[in-house]
Amino acid sequence: MRRLPPDHYISGIRAGDRLVLSRAITLVESQLESDQELALAVLEQVLPQTGRSVRIGITGVPGVGKSTFIEAFGKHLTKSGKKVAVLAIDPTSQRSHGSILGDKTRMETLSTDPLAYIRPSPSGGSLGGVANKTRETMLLCEAAGFEVVLIETVGVGQSETLVYGMVDFFLLLMLAGAGDELQGMKRGIMELADAIAITKADGENATAAERARLEYQNALHLFPPAPTNWAPPVLTCSALQQRGISELWQIISEHQQLGLQSGFRDRNRQQQNLDWLHSTIRQRLESRFYNPPDRREKLVQIEDAVRKGEMLPLQGAQHLLASF
Amino acid sequence: MRRLPPDHYISGIRAGDRLVLSRAITLVESQLESDQELALAVLEQVLPQTGRSVRIGITGVPGVGKSTFIEAFGKHLTKSGKKVAVLAIDPTSQRSHGSILGDKTRMETLSTDPLAYIRPSPSGGSLGGVANKTRETMLLCEAAGFEVVLIETVGVGQSETLVYGMVDFFLLLMLAGAGDELQGMKRGIMELADAIAITKADGENATAAERARLEYQNALHLFPPAPTNWAPPVLTCSALQQRGISELWQIISEHQQLGLQSGFRDRNRQQQNLDWLHSTIRQRLESRFYNPPDRREKLVQIEDAVRKGEMLPLQGAQHLLASF
Repeated sequence: MRRLPPDHYISGIRAGDRLVLSRAITLVESQLESDQELALAVLEQVLPQTGRSVRIGITGVPGVGKSTFIEAFGKHLTKSGKKVAVLAIDPTSQRSHGSILGDKTRMETLSTDPLAYIRPSPSGGSLGGVANKTRETMLLCEAAGFEVVLIETVGVGQSETLVYGMVDFFLLLMLAGAGDELQGMKRGIMELADAIAITKADGENATAAERARLEYQNALHLFPPAPTNWAPPVLTCSALQQRGISELWQIISEHQQLGLQSGFRDRNRQQQNLDWLHSTIRQRLESRFYNPPDRREKLVQIEDAVRKGEMLPLQGAQHLLASF
Repeated sequence: MRRLPPDHYISGIRAGDRLVLSRAITLVESQLESDQELALAVLEQVLPQTGRSVRIGITGVPGVGKSTFIEAFGKHLTKSGKKVAVLAIDPTSQRSHGSILGDKTRMETLSTDPLAYIRPSPSGGSLGGVANKTRETMLLCEAAGFEVVLIETVGVGQSETLVYGMVDFFLLLMLAGAGDELQGMKRGIMELADAIAITKADGENATAAERARLEYQNALHLFPPAPTNWAPPVLTCSALQQRGISELWQIISEHQQLGLQSGFRDRNRQQQNLDWLHSTIRQRLESRFYNPPDRREKLVQIEDAVRKGEMLPLQGAQHLLASF
């Protein structure tokens, strides 16, 4: 694709031009160094226009109904005139398990909504690299005037912690039943949630969902409180019946307002920026270290010895670091 | 202190000589490069004698009664003839808040027990560095014939995750009441626990402790299951009345046996070794990067701009990495 001069991207994004926004995101996601330089120049210029959205992370195991929920939630927001961007971090896309948001038939109504912008997860590279791209895409969307940014991920691996580290509000979607569907969930995630929504609370499922809501609400009382003293609510919702959707937006708005008043939201974002700085440095240092093929060969041998307990990890690290 | 030849340490440790063990741990904890080389040579030689203990992590907020609990638990084990080592990782010791295990008057009975060995937390350096020293000390204790290693930490900061990453069983101590005492606890820790013990379940506190036990037990059912399907039990205990102590040891023994049968314990330790290798490499890379004074000066400025949102974290990282 032909590249535009930086000013073209910058003015297009500021004007909310979706085509230009998409092309700028393509730069962010590109592996080409020239593209990345261009992306950085654009980001630098639009930085004063960023930060004005409500940043919401949404997670849940496959099957919980994330896209149906996001479609209903997104439509609720656009109906009230809000511009909504939907992004994703998909830890499975590298393993070709079929990526979230990759299926074009999903979120049919939302994807044709002029107030909504949906961008699938960037693919390729390390998960940390993918997360960086999503962060930068979020900034571009904010500069383009999107007032709510939803970042979707799935309940496996490290992706949830990464999303948690870039949003103001972290929403966990769960199914009633608390049985098999929990198998895929990572431990420790539940305690990060700012709210839990029990999905598919309709028809035969409604009673079980309400029971689950009460159980989780009781359980959350036993958790250590968040630094803000925010007590995460548990609610049921049905995308089918449009129930619980506006309530959830009220909860998020209240959380946002409290955070703005107490200064927590800004302090949290400042800390997230610092974490982003240091995690970028760490990623770059590690990729410089691990990339040379001869070191990677050596690493395989050392990992094998360390795994078996034949070599001390410390010793293995020293061997590898000696040639750096 | 005068250093001994490596063979002296090695044979002394293998013979279970506590004085030699202590001197070897001093080498591990030393900042001198020559000491660290000597420590590594010793560790390398005793490596085949390591790995035979039950590794138990114990955490809980200050005031939960960790040392009283460990004293009672340790005595229970030594009474049945088991050799017990008690180590610690204290994230607060660098800030001179008074370190755990630093107070010599604590664990009075256990500390004079010929079957017990108590070593305070190493101090100084980064938390990751402190954790590495504790890992190595654990190996030395195992080579010296200790059959149970207890690693104590407190419920703040990253130290719990570090301890979790070096043990077979992670025990969370809690107080009844679920109120103020939870304030200091980090979110996400409860879901890592292999068991929760409600301490001080005696006298007027007994009823509240039992109620708390039931509540936590119900709450844990709602957590995603561990990869092993181990369902973390919640029990009450009283160091004063010696209740719940032997039950807890039974639970840990059962967990250990299941883990050995399923192969999970060994796979888990292999993964821990690999994580140790990579975290050591990461620490060394980062300390090489962050140590030069001119880079640290630059970092302060860049962190300031990044925190305020005036500079992109990515940009800040590039500035800093340009001179590396």
